[in-house]
Parts: sequence; structure tokens; C-alpha cells
Amino acid sequence: MITRIDRVGTELPPPSTPDPDGAAAVQELMGGRFGEMSTFMNYTFQSFNFRGRQGARPFYDLIANIAAEEFGHIELVAATINTMLTGVTPAKTPKTPRGKLAKVKSARNSQHFLAGGQGALCQDSNGRAWTGDNVFSSGDLVEDLTHNFFLETGARNNKLKVYEMVDHPAARALTGYLLVRGGVHQLAYARALEVLTGADLRKLFPSPRIPTDKIPECRPHLKRGEGEKLYRFSQTDYHELAAVWTGTHPETGKKLVVEDEPPKGALPRDLPPQPAVFAPDYAPEEIAKIAEKLRKAAGLPKEPTGEVA
Amino acid sequence: MITRIDRVGTELPPPSTPDPDGAAAVQELMGGRFGEMSTFMNYTFQSFNFRGRQGARPFYDLIANIAAEEFGHIELVAATINTMLTGVTPAKTPKTPRGKLAKVKSARNSQHFLAGGQGALCQDSNGRAWTGDNVFSSGDLVEDLTHNFFLETGARNNKLKVYEMVDHPAARALTGYLLVRGGVHQLAYARALEVLTGADLRKLFPSPRIPTDKIPECRPHLKRGEGEKLYRFSQTDYHELAAVWTGTHPETGKKLVVEDEPPKGALPRDLPPQPAVFAPDYAPEEIAKIAEKLRKAAGLPKEPTGEVA
Amino acid sequence: MITRIDRVGTELPPPSTPDPDGAAAVQELMGGRFGEMSTFMNYTFQSFNFRGRQGARPFYDLIANIAAEEFGHIELVAATINTMLTGVTPAKTPKTPRGKLAKVKSARNSQHFLAGGQGALCQDSNGRAWTGDNVFSSGDLVEDLTHNFFLETGARNNKLKVYEMVDHPAARALTGYLLVRGGVHQLAYARALEVLTGADLRKLFPSPRIPTDKIPECRPHLKRGEGEKLYRFSQTDYHELAAVWTGTHPETGKKLVVEDEPPKGALPRDLPPQPAVFAPDYAPEEIAKIAEKLRKAAGLPKEPTGEVA
Amino acid sequence: MITRIDRVGTELPPPSTPDPDGAAAVQELMGGRFGEMSTFMNYTFQSFNFRGRQGARPFYDLIANIAAEEFGHIELVAATINTMLTGVTPAKTPKTPRGKLAKVKSARNSQHFLAGGQGALCQDSNGRAWTGDNVFSSGDLVEDLTHNFFLETGARNNKLKVYEMVDHPAARALTGYLLVRGGVHQLAYARALEVLTGADLRKLFPSPRIPTDKIPECRPHLKRGEGEKLYRFSQTDYHELAAVWTGTHPETGKKLVVEDEPPKGALPRDLPPQPAVFAPDYAPEEIAKIAEKLRKAAGLPKEPTGEVA
Amino acid sequence: MITRIDRVGTELPPPSTPDPDGAAAVQELMGGRFGEMSTFMNYTFQSFNFRGRQGARPFYDLIANIAAEEFGHIELVAATINTMLTGVTPAKTPKTPRGKLAKVKSARNSQHFLAGGQGALCQDSNGRAWTGDNVFSSGDLVEDLTHNFFLETGARNNKLKVYEMVDHPAARALTGYLLVRGGVHQLAYARALEVLTGADLRKLFPSPRIPTDKIPECRPHLKRGEGEKLYRFSQTDYHELAAVWTGTHPETGKKLVVEDEPPKGALPRDLPPQPAVFAPDYAPEEIAKIAEKLRKAAGLPKEPTGEVA
Amino acid sequence: MITRIDRVGTELPPPSTPDPDGAAAVQELMGGRFGEMSTFMNYTFQSFNFRGRQGARPFYDLIANIAAEEFGHIELVAATINTMLTGVTPAKTPKTPRGKLAKVKSARNSQHFLAGGQGALCQDSNGRAWTGDNVFSSGDLVEDLTHNFFLETGARNNKLKVYEMVDHPAARALTGYLLVRGGVHQLAYARALEVLTGADLRKLFPSPRIPTDKIPECRPHLKRGEGEKLYRFSQTDYHELAAVWTGTHPETGKKLVVEDEPPKGALPRDLPPQPAVFAPDYAPEEIAKIAEKLRKAAGLPKEPTGEVA
Repeated sequence: MITRIDRVGTELPPPSTPDPDGAAAVQELMGGRFGEMSTFMNYTFQSFNFRGRQGARPFYDLIANIAAEEFGHIELVAATINTMLTGVTPAKTPKTPRGKLAKVKSARNSQHFLAGGQGALCQDSNGRAWTGDNVFSSGDLVEDLTHNFFLETGARNNKLKVYEMVDHPAARALTGYLLVRGGVHQLAYARALEVLTGADLRKLFPSPRIPTDKIPECRPHLKRGEGEKLYRFSQTDYHELAAVWTGTHPETGKKLVVEDEPPKGALPRDLPPQPAVFAPDYAPEEIAKIAEKLRKAAGLPKEPTGEVA
Repeated sequence: MITRIDRVGTELPPPSTPDPDGAAAVQELMGGRFGEMSTFMNYTFQSFNFRGRQGARPFYDLIANIAAEEFGHIELVAATINTMLTGVTPAKTPKTPRGKLAKVKSARNSQHFLAGGQGALCQDSNGRAWTGDNVFSSGDLVEDLTHNFFLETGARNNKLKVYEMVDHPAARALTGYLLVRGGVHQLAYARALEVLTGADLRKLFPSPRIPTDKIPECRPHLKRGEGEKLYRFSQTDYHELAAVWTGTHPETGKKLVVEDEPPKGALPRDLPPQPAVFAPDYAPEEIAKIAEKLRKAAGLPKEPTGEVA
Repeated sequence: MITRIDRVGTELPPPSTPDPDGAAAVQELMGGRFGEMSTFMNYTFQSFNFRGRQGARPFYDLIANIAAEEFGHIELVAATINTMLTGVTPAKTPKTPRGKLAKVKSARNSQHFLAGGQGALCQDSNGRAWTGDNVFSSGDLVEDLTHNFFLETGARNNKLKVYEMVDHPAARALTGYLLVRGGVHQLAYARALEVLTGADLRKLFPSPRIPTDKIPECRPHLKRGEGEKLYRFSQTDYHELAAVWTGTHPETGKKLVVEDEPPKGALPRDLPPQPAVFAPDYAPEEIAKIAEKLRKAAGLPKEPTGEVA
Repeated sequence: MITRIDRVGTELPPPSTPDPDGAAAVQELMGGRFGEMSTFMNYTFQSFNFRGRQGARPFYDLIANIAAEEFGHIELVAATINTMLTGVTPAKTPKTPRGKLAKVKSARNSQHFLAGGQGALCQDSNGRAWTGDNVFSSGDLVEDLTHNFFLETGARNNKLKVYEMVDHPAARALTGYLLVRGGVHQLAYARALEVLTGADLRKLFPSPRIPTDKIPECRPHLKRGEGEKLYRFSQTDYHELAAVWTGTHPETGKKLVVEDEPPKGALPRDLPPQPAVFAPDYAPEEIAKIAEKLRKAAGLPKEPTGEVA
Repeated sequence: MITRIDRVGTELPPPSTPDPDGAAAVQELMGGRFGEMSTFMNYTFQSFNFRGRQGARPFYDLIANIAAEEFGHIELVAATINTMLTGVTPAKTPKTPRGKLAKVKSARNSQHFLAGGQGALCQDSNGRAWTGDNVFSSGDLVEDLTHNFFLETGARNNKLKVYEMVDHPAARALTGYLLVRGGVHQLAYARALEVLTGADLRKLFPSPRIPTDKIPECRPHLKRGEGEKLYRFSQTDYHELAAVWTGTHPETGKKLVVEDEPPKGALPRDLPPQPAVFAPDYAPEEIAKIAEKLRKAAGLPKEPTGEVA
Repeated sequence: MITRIDRVGTELPPPSTPDPDGAAAVQELMGGRFGEMSTFMNYTFQSFNFRGRQGARPFYDLIANIAAEEFGHIELVAATINTMLTGVTPAKTPKTPRGKLAKVKSARNSQHFLAGGQGALCQDSNGRAWTGDNVFSSGDLVEDLTHNFFLETGARNNKLKVYEMVDHPAARALTGYLLVRGGVHQLAYARALEVLTGADLRKLFPSPRIPTDKIPECRPHLKRGEGEKLYRFSQTDYHELAAVWTGTHPETGKKLVVEDEPPKGALPRDLPPQPAVFAPDYAPEEIAKIAEKLRKAAGLPKEPTGEVA
């Protein structure tokens, strides 16, 4: 089971100039073969399918715990895409919907507008749906770890390239953060293979062969030690990841550290309605009035109780 | 973000007679169009993409919170499938792997054995991968809720039919539980539509038109009031679902109740290794030895710290 | 536009012993690459996309008209599958749904029961959905006709093999009929190519190389001249197919004939409810009562006005 | 069975400035999850699979009859796309094909030109094929109707957004018409659910929450009462839809009316050849000559007998 | 089995101005339904599945041998795409990767850059993966040949249209060559059908109806007799294709000729690294140094032994 | 370019008792994510897309050369499936086709019979088509090699499990051979990574953790040294693989050896016609007569010139 915290992993900038084609590219990090849906679902299924987990507890804890962090990554990718699409249509309900999407007629992913309400899709950068075929869960621990190391390597490649392709501030904030945290996972699986078999995969770092600290947007995170920290995403469980996440980082030489609680994260932004695409309505203020009444009737405070940035 | 608890939503029986074709059918509840991957991912994406959430907080909280419960449902479906596949191969490493899967050559889903290690797949009952095309997230609140009500109706249909098709004790325990909890979600979305628009969808219950309490496996859960409870799957957030989950149940007439914390759940079972399919290894005891050493080196207790049933 | 007639192309036998695996095989004729969805949709799209149709009217009329007949073929394939699946569950609402689908747990296509209500799916014989990728519509008349001839050849192959595989009386009645009518379409496209280019494709008949009259179930249709008749499926249009459908049949030597109206067809059967799978309800008699009231209120006769076999 | 009438549902403007990216967007209304292929095929399969139809005749007649209208909608969407693509290549056979498609090298859907002959595809707006997985046919009447209401709601959303995105006159004419007719179907399914269960879905109208008469292109159709009329698309059958289509329209308050015959429709346009893409040939006049000869030989009038706009 | 020769079928020009959208279009010739993956894999599977091949040796030899040539065609298509994508990023390792892909953010196929290293994908022109569903191998010789003739006709259409759409010198060199060689295969299958059944398909040539020698880029190949030559792609086998490839060419009237060995082909180009996308590395010179050492250690010459253009 | 040799990699036994469900399982080795289509196409595309190949010649040669061997592996998998399906229908043309496929109505893969002529499909063990999405070709050498090592590991897993599941002599011969040759490729990629980066992946062998020589069917191949040999599949090129394939085998300790020419292989079997499914015809002897005539006319020997086992 999970519990949910209404915070995101890192702070994203507010909406600025919309960037539909950039948002289409960022979709690769959501629904591509190496996107966050893949990392999230691979580790989730591997943890579900883990046989003999007591005998292999440190490895089970590692995989199950990283799965939990990955949920926060699909959340961030979605937030980035939503940020980049904000402003394509007017902030206020227009008198007529006519022509309100005309300027994105040639955008790379039409379904951001036609299927979604200027929102993230469960697709890759070519507009194709993520598929369960991306999940690898053989049950063979060494093999699943080999896969995971490869998966994180492919994911790092994709993050670097999205970074090269998309200049929008939200995309930069996203890739800067994900490169650091994904790097931790890449190393965690290499490390697990090493302690299990003796194979030294640390010599494969960095892969692709560009050090993470060459990316300016990664540096603040690296400085805070985010490249060496493995957070425990549980109040109660997964203590044994500490048995694998030991030693030093192959690039920085710094000590690997287990943080015994989830990161604080940041308040999510409340992205503004885009009434022309009915998100959340053609007349969102009507919903707000109803919500206020419901809140009152339920004895809740007059103001929304949720916190946003 | 999420945190993870190493517990499952309800207790499942231990492995008994393996039931590969039953497990193949249960896959519909995992990766079918109306399976738990779909409910989980639909509500997750809808919460990610929710614009103007402060103005519509009760509805945002409702959707975001139900998403969290659904993670526990994919977990349970996986546990059920894994339970049903346990025992197809010998419990101990066989002298030779030859013929160890011969008896499942005609099983409906070969990939349970060839791709997985007698484990759950991200597929439906016909062996086809779940796809992101199953995610509907229009951003239009009324429309998303209409979809969700329909989705839960289709899901209830599928659970009932899997119940009719598969007799294995684990499948019965699963469907008995999911029918009750899914019924809560079906009602939650109907209720949300009602408070938002005035449309009375309660007359559509039960849909399909067989009352939940006709299913013996549902009754213990109903007796404990699980059919009227909406749990808050967060230590800190989503308080406003209380503004929607009000009134009475259309079938039982009982008062709808918000539980202010997640359910206790049950300890997961540690399903035994199936070494013939290398899950978690052809010689799992070697992993256990390594794990023990790692645990010791990390200053962890000699015995695994994780709890299992 | 179309208008619909509540009749089917040929009479099918009533339900007898259910044959779920046979029904799964018959799906190839629905949603396989060469199934009736493909023939229907290929000719439909080709007629929609036909440019310069006045200049090429006989060919436009031919393709548009055959498209109309193909609708009746998907209808017949569906009726056959539904017939073969009837009886898998009890005719009356059972006291408990428990175990009512147990005997089809190992059936080849689980979704006949889990997704459908013992009903036809838009899938092939391996349970994979029909796809629009099966539509070929290049706009190049000679090329589209070459495709159509090939498509009908593949379709004839599939019908013959389903005939060889499935002994159920409904499947035999279906394949006997479709082989004859599909043969007409195969010849129509060969003929169109011939009058357009001079290429003699008649020497390719029969393809596959087994004469249609070797199939006992085809003979009554052949005897009635169904192998040489092209029906005009329109009260008002498509007169110019008569300019292509000329000459003699390459196998029988008989004259090709245009029938200036659609075939009479047969009354459809009203297949009985299967309440255990909620088709059309768990308590179908309740629907019947409501329907009766509605009919009365609308001034319609007390008895249903539709005719069934 | 069906018969076909060589007319389209509404008049479309003649080709003007080509709009390839607009045509790519309009594909969503053809092959998207909520496109006309989906409405057509959902109701068609539901009518095929309808068990106990005599007992539920008004509902069977309603679904079967709406299916028939939907054929006309895929026809119109195709005609619109074809219109929008006309003129991309020269009207006359060019001396050389070289470069004749150069200006659409960056068009969103290359296959309009490479696979089709500047023609409609069985795809969505992201160039992905329509799939039979979009067909929902559970056999459970209440559930199928719930689905259909949801489907029409999603379809209305998509039509509105295509209207917002694509300014081409043909697209406007199309969406203006489809919004009105789709609205009728949305209401028909809501109404069916209401008479069957008492659930009041009329409060959900309009959904999305923008009244249809805000769209100027809809108004002429609304003025002619097209928003309250349900046509009977059969010369002989489906009389009992009159038992469901009763009462008043939730938006206009006007009486709902059954028209006892199909609409007159409009003559289809004969879109000009585009010889550079071989549609219908690189030298279409040669086909015309052959057709003339064939017509003569068959005793048909010298001029094509088909009527076009 | 095969052996491989490090040469390509025809000479391609060196990289010039990059043309990403052109490269996206050329993908249709790789992974489209009628692309070279399809021709290669269709004939390959048909040769694998050929039953009774001794009795039908000339036909087996024909199909198996053409399959071998098709490998060279996927190779050429890939080389063309790679050539067209060269230069999108700098030739030297940039100081920072930032923005290095910014100019292709709106390119039609993002995965050329995000998934590949500016390299060919196994996809069509709409960015969808090639699929094994494109393989037709019924085992029925006449039917497989009918398919193959149709396949080559569709392939010729696609090549002509890519020629019309893409002006890049590499694309022109490619299509000029493929049109000639594909024409040989189209005729080979027509000829095989003719000798087997007597059906005269030669009247269907050219299809599409534009003579190959109207394409300037085809003429040099035609002049060298490439339109009438069938090469034997084997040092030892497939002699009996000479029994089918007889007679004259339907367009040129020239004698058909079997060349008893593969064509010489041309040296492949060594396309330059694109270090910004890590192809083959962010610092390719490091790989070169390692390679040199390895070569030395293995007693190989100091300079690379492979020949490139 | 390639040339083709009409031999297969290893000798397979003649057809014996047909094993349709076994054949369905073997399809995983053809079209599964880790099947031979995947290994063949991954290395093929990687070699096509290799940039800066002169500087990295030993690695280019290695990948390009292994690609060539993989063609022989898809050939062998197809031959195995065909062998296992032989005999399902009668050897002689039956008087009537009726019922000739009745006994395989419940076989796992219907399309072996309905789409193919008792022949191999481009599908996996669940009847789903192989897809180009299985091709990974990032252009980053280290990353592609990491992928390839993972791919071969997954492939070894699948071969072992098919070995466990399928007892048919042809399947055993196949898996025994493929395990040995695939093991060579797994090691080759590990070795390439090692010489390139220093990472020691040899400690991961064997993976899955069962030594190859535990499989009796592997031993004859191992004894002949097939586990340490890398064949050069070219008469002229790819000499530099010798710079990578050095050192000793991690399991046997024996020296790794480059064989400077392709293996001799074995004569393919000429599998008998299955006329009931028209493979190669309903009356194959007619084809034989035509072939004889053609051969004669072409001056070829009276007897087929091709050699078969």
C-alpha cells in the first residue's frame, strides 16, 4: 500500500511562454521506453513479484523503495508538461471557443489539446502510448538488476537529450533534478549487482560518458548531496536498503548515504484553469462556488485546506 | 510523492493447488481496459493534470486520494496471481531443469513462465499488454467524473465475471475484497457528479444489477462497514474528500463515512522461491547467504527486518 | 449514408452445443487481417476516398456497393459467434453467480466472457484487436483493385481453414455462405482489373486451388446462382456496376448477373439472454416489463414490433 | 444488412486552400478513441450482440438505428479530410512527379500522402490506427448505455476542440453538423438510461458545459430542429425507438421528435483527381475513356449515371 | 545462413544539409507496411516456411534469393536516413550539451534524436514501429506470390511518393536505385505467377502507371541494365531462379537476365560521430585510442582494416 | 549486403509427433522481446547506425558480424516450429478439407493454421507480433553494448525456459544449440564492455545462474568447442573482431577462438507439403510438374539442383 503526500520532488518554475513542441518532447520522459512510467512500473512489478524476499531482504527493500520514489518522478514530468502547455488558450472563459486552439494546429502532439485539457498524456514523444510491454520482471534477481541498470542508463541518455532539445525553464528544472536522482538509481542497481556477484560496474560510470556536474542545472542538487543520498520512502519499512547503498560514488568519491525519510519536496503549483479546453470547466468559477458550499456543509474551513505554491 | 507501507489491503490465503489458467483470467483485473492498472493510472493522471485545484479542492482531493488506494489494488492482484502460480515448479532447485515446465505447455498465458518467473505481468486476460491509451484525462471535471463512474462500472462487471470464472481461494478472496472497495469508488464518483450537477446516478446502483451482498466473499467486508468507508490515504493531505463523501449508501441505506487514516491492511506473504524458473535464483540460498553478510556489515539485525505473514 | 434492414444475409441454425474454442477461431473472420471488418472497411474507405469518381463511375459503384454487402458479413460473423457462445451459462438467472463461468476458464478467448456478455469481439482468432492499419486505400484505382483481389484471396484462404477447423453447425453455415459470396467479390475485383488493364487474372481461380463446389455447405448457395450474382445494395444508386460485372464465371462458365436489389436475407434469431453474464441484465424480465410500459406509452403495439426467426 | 444511398449527411464546401495540418487534426474525429469509427462500431457491435432483443426492443431499435446514422458520420469526416487535402498537388498530370509533395514534407501526417492518395486514413490525430479495443460491448444493457453516454460526451469534447483548432471551412461545416447530431445521440442514451432506471442524467447537459447554440456553425442545424430529431434510418425496421425518444430537450425545452425516414442529405462532391499521387491514376483521363466504353457496352447512358454536387 | 559483405548496394552522396523531416519521411521506406523491412521479412519468412521446396525449387530459389537482396535495401534506407541526420549536432564534442538539439525540437520524429543517436529507427514515417503483422506467409505458393506482387506494387507507390516529397540528394539517390531494383522484384513475382498459372500480369505494368524511366535518378541504373537483371545473392545456391526469370521486360522489351553473382555494390561511408548525442560517445577519440591498442594487441595492422568510401 | 547459403546452423531431427502447443511456446524464441528477431534486428540496426566506425572498428566488426549469425538463428527457430507443426494435417491431398484442422481447434496459436500454412509466424508465444520497438540502437557504443549484454541475458533465460517447457526433439535440438551460441554472444558483449571500460562483467556468468553444461543437449556443442568460438560470417570483412574476442571463457576457462569462416552448418530438411492447408498447394504435384518443365526449358538438370537433408 502507499500513502500520498501532496508535494512534488522539486520546485518547478511557474508557467511562462508556452512551449507545446517542447512539451511533446518531454513526453519521452513520461511514456517512452525509458521514461518514468517505465522505471516506476518496472520496480513496482519487480517488488510485487519478488519471491523469497526474506532471504533477499536488502535487495527487495532496495527495489521496492526506489519504486516509491519513481511515483514522484511521473508526477514531476506531468507537472512540467502541464506548466509548458499553460497559456496556450486564454486564462478567462472566452466569449467564443472559435479559433482558440488555432495556433497549435501544427503542434507535434495534437492530443495534448484534443484528448487532454492541455495536460500530460501517458505517451512518448512520438505520441504513442506507454505499454506494459516495457515492464521487465523475470523474477531472477541478478537479471532484473542487470535490466534495471540498463534501464537507468537508457533513461539517463533520454534525460540528457531532452535537456539538449528543450530550453523551457520547467524542462530544465525537471531534467536537472531527474539526472541527479536517476543517477542515484543507476548506481544503486550497479552497486546491488556488485555486492551480489562481485562484478564491478562502477567503471561504466558515467554512462552516457558526460559527468553529471557538467550540467549547470544539476549542480545545486549535487551540492546538496542529492547525488549520494538514497531516501527511504517509508515511515515504517525498507530499512535494509542500507545494506546495499554503501561505499562511495564512482564519480565524486563521496560517501553514499541513506536518508531515513522522504525528502521534503516542494509545494505543487496550482496551474490556472484553461477554460477554452474545459479544464476544469468552461466556467470554472461555478465549480468553485459549489466547492465552497460543499466545504461549508462539511464543516471544513472556508478557504481550501490544501497548500499550493 | 508517495510513501510506501509494506502491507497489502487484505489477507490472501497461502498458495495451494496452482491454477495457471485461473491466473491468466485474473490478469484481466490487472491489465485489462477496466483492470486496476487502469483505475490507478486514470485517477493518478487526472490528479496530476487537475487545473484550478484550489477552486475545486474537494474533487481534487477525492480523485487524488482514490488513486492512492488503487496502488494497493494492483499490488493485491499481483499477489493473487503469484499465489496461484506458486507450485507449478518444484520448491527446491531441481537436479535438471529439463521438463520442469512441461505441464504448463498448454497454459493460456505462456509468458507467466517464459517472460516472468511464475509472476504477474502487466497484461490482460488475453496476454496483451496494458496500454496508456486506457488513460482518460480530459481535464474537464464533469467529464472525467463521468468517465470514472463508467470505468468503475466496467470494473465491477469484470470483477464479478472473474469471480464467476475462477474458483481458486486466492481469486475469491481478491474479488470479494475488490468488489467492495471498487463499489465505494463507483459510488464516490456518482456522488461527486451528483453534488456537482444534481444528476442522480444513485438509481443506477447496483450496476451490473446484482447486489454486492449476494457474493458470500464480500459479506465479511460489508459487515465491517467497508462498503461505506472512504479511507484517507495520506497522513497530511486530502482532507476535503469529506465534502463529497456524504449521505447514505444507495443499496444499504447506511451512512457514508470518511476514515481519517489508511486501513491497517495485512502482512504480505513471502511467496517461496521457484528455482526452476530462477526466481529469485537457481540457487536462492546463495543469495540468502550474501544478504546475511551484507546485513551484518551494515549493522542490521541478523534476521531480516521485514515482516511477512 | 446507409439505411439498415433488420435481416441477415443467410439463415443460421439455432444455438446448440456451445463451442467457445470454435467461436474463438471464427473471430479470425471478424477481426483478422483478412476478416470481414477488413473487407468492409477497405472498400468503405476506398469509396470515401475515390477521386474523380464521375470519370470512373463503374469502378466507384462496384467498390461502394460491395462495401455495403460486407456490412452484412460482419453481422453474420457476429451472429455465428454469439450462437456458438449461447448456453455456456444458464438460461435463467442463477441463485448465485459463483462458478457460472468455471467451465470456460481455459477457453481460448477469455474476453468473450470477461469483456463481452458471451458475445462477439472486434478481435482476431488470437484475441488481438482489429486495427485500422488493415485498411489500404491508396487512391490509385489499379492498385486498390490489386489489393482487393489479394485481400479476397487471403479471405478465401481463411474461410476455408476456419471451415476445416470448426465443425459447429453455425460455423459451417457461415463459412458455406461466405465462401460463395466472397468468391463473387474476389472475381469482381479480378474482373475490374481485367477490363481496366487487360490483365487476365481469371486463370488464378480458384485461389486457394480448391473449387468452391467441393464444399458441401456451399452447394445450395451455388445452386441458387449465388456464385454469379452481384446484388445492388441500394434502392437508388450504384447502377454502373453492371458495366464491370459482365462475362462468365471462370470456374462454372455461367453468365455473371447483376441483381437489381439486395437479397431477401433471413430473419435474425433472437438469441436468449445469458443472465449470469448480465446480458442483457441479471434479471432480464425487469427490462421486458419496462419496455412493455414504454411501448404502451408510445402507442406502439403490445407485442414487440420487430420480427425475429 | 444495409443498403447504401450515395448522399452525405450535410453539404460540405468545395475544396479551397489545402490545410494538411488541419486535416491531420480532423483525423481525431475519424480514428480517435471518441471518433466516428468508435461511435459507429460500438453501436454496431452492441446491436449485433444484443441478447433478448424482443424483450428489450425499444432499446435494441435505438442502438441499432443510431449505428446506421454513424456510418454517415465516418463518411462525412472522410469527405472533409479529402476536401482539405485537395490541391496539395497539381490538378493536372505533371510532367515530372519530382518535388510534387515537397511542400508537405513537414506536414503532421505524412501518410496522408505516402500511404493514401491525399485521402482519409483510419487513424487518429497523432497518426495512430483506430483499434477494435475501442469497442465496448458488454451485453449488459445499462452498462452499454452508460458507456454510450460517456462515449458521446467524449466525442462532443473532441468535436468542440477540433472546432477550436481548425478553421478550414470544411472542418467548420463538419463540426457544426456533428455537434448537433452527436448531441442527439448523447441525449438519446441519457434518455434510455432514464427510462430504464430513473436516473436523471439530463442535469449533466450540456457536457462539456458550453451550450451548442454558442457555436455559430451549429445554429442553422438547430434552427431546423436537428437537435431534437431522431431519424429512423430504415425503410422497414426500428420503429420502437419512438418509445425512448420522448419528452423534451434539456437545453432547449423543445419536444423530442422521431422522423420516420432518413434525412435527405446532400449530394456528395466529386473531388478532383490528384494525378501526382496517382489518385485515381497518373493519367486519369485514360480511366475515363475505358469507363465510357464499358458503360456503352453495358447499355448504360453515355454520361455517368451517378449524381454529384 | 548468411554471410555479410561490408558494402552497400549503391553509392550514396556524402552528408550535406541535414534534413530531419525528410529523414522522417524516408522512414516509410524502412518501417512502413510497404517498406523494406516488410519486403525483407516477408520473403525471408516465406522461404523459411516453404514446404515441398524440392518439388517447387525454381519458386523457392526465387523467393529465398530476393529475400537476400532485400537485406541490402534496409541497409541502404538506414544509410540514407543517417546521412540526412548528420550535421544536426556539431562534429566536435561541444563544451556543453545544452541546446544542442534545440533546432530539431519541432522535427517530425523526435526519436531520431531522443531514442537514436541521429540514426535510423525501425519505424514508419509517422513514428510507429514496424510490426510482424506485416509478414504474410500463408504457405500457399500462388497466394504468397499474389501477395508479393501486391506488396511490390505498394512499395513502388511509396518510393515514388517519397521521391516526390524529399529532395535531399541522399533520398534521391536512394529512391532512384530502389525504384529500379524493386521494379525487378515486382516483375519477378508477376512472372512467377504467370509461369505457374498462365495469368498475364504484365499488363498491369507499370503500376503505379508512370514509367520508371521518367524518373531521372533511375535512368543511370536502367542504362546499366539494372531493370532487367536478377542477381544471384549466393555463392553456392538458388540456381533455379533462372527457370522463372525468363522472357522480356514489359516496359522496355529487353531480355531478362540472371546475373550469377551479387552486384559489386559500393563502399559504405563512415558517417562522422555526433558526440552531442553520444554517437558513438561524448568523446569518440577515447574509443579510437582503445581500439588502436586492441588492434595492436591482436596483431592487426595499425590502421583499421575495414574499407570505407 | 549479404549473400545467402542454403544451409542451417545445426541439424534438426525430422518431423515426428506434431506438437502445436510446443510450437506456440517456441514462438517466444522467434518474436518475443528476447527472441531471435530481436537479437538479429538489434545488432543489424546498430551496425547500420554505427558512426565513426573506422575509429571503433573492432566493435563495429563485432556487432555487424554477430548480426549475420543471428539471421541463421531466426532460420532455425522457424525450421523448428515448422517441424513441430508437420503432420497436423494429412500428407496427401484429402478428398474433402472438412474437419482437417478440427483437432487443433483448441491449440494455443490458431494463426499457425489460419494465417500460416502450419508455419512459423513473426509472433511471440502469446500470439502477438514482434515489433520494431524491440530494437535499441542509441548510437552510444557503451550503452548499446550494455543493452546487448542485457538482451542476451534475457534471451538465455527464455531459451532455458522453453527448454524446460517443450520436450519435442526439434525444440530440444534447437535450444541446446541456441544456448551455446547465444552464450558466445552474451560473452562477446561482456568482453567488449570490459576492454572498453574495464568493467568486469565476467562475474555475472552464468546468468541465469545455471551452467550451460548442465543441459545435456548443449554438451555435444560444447565438446566441439562451440562455446568458445566466434565465427567470422564474411568471406571478406569483419576481421577486427579478433581484437575483442580474446582471453578465456569465464565458465570453462578455455581460450576464446576466432574461426575465420562461417560454420559448415547442416542441410535443411525439405518439410513435406500439407495440402489441406494449401502448403504449397491443394495439389502440390501440379506445381512439381510445372517446375520440372520450367527447369527443362531453362536448361537446368531434370532433378532439383538444391540439396536437402
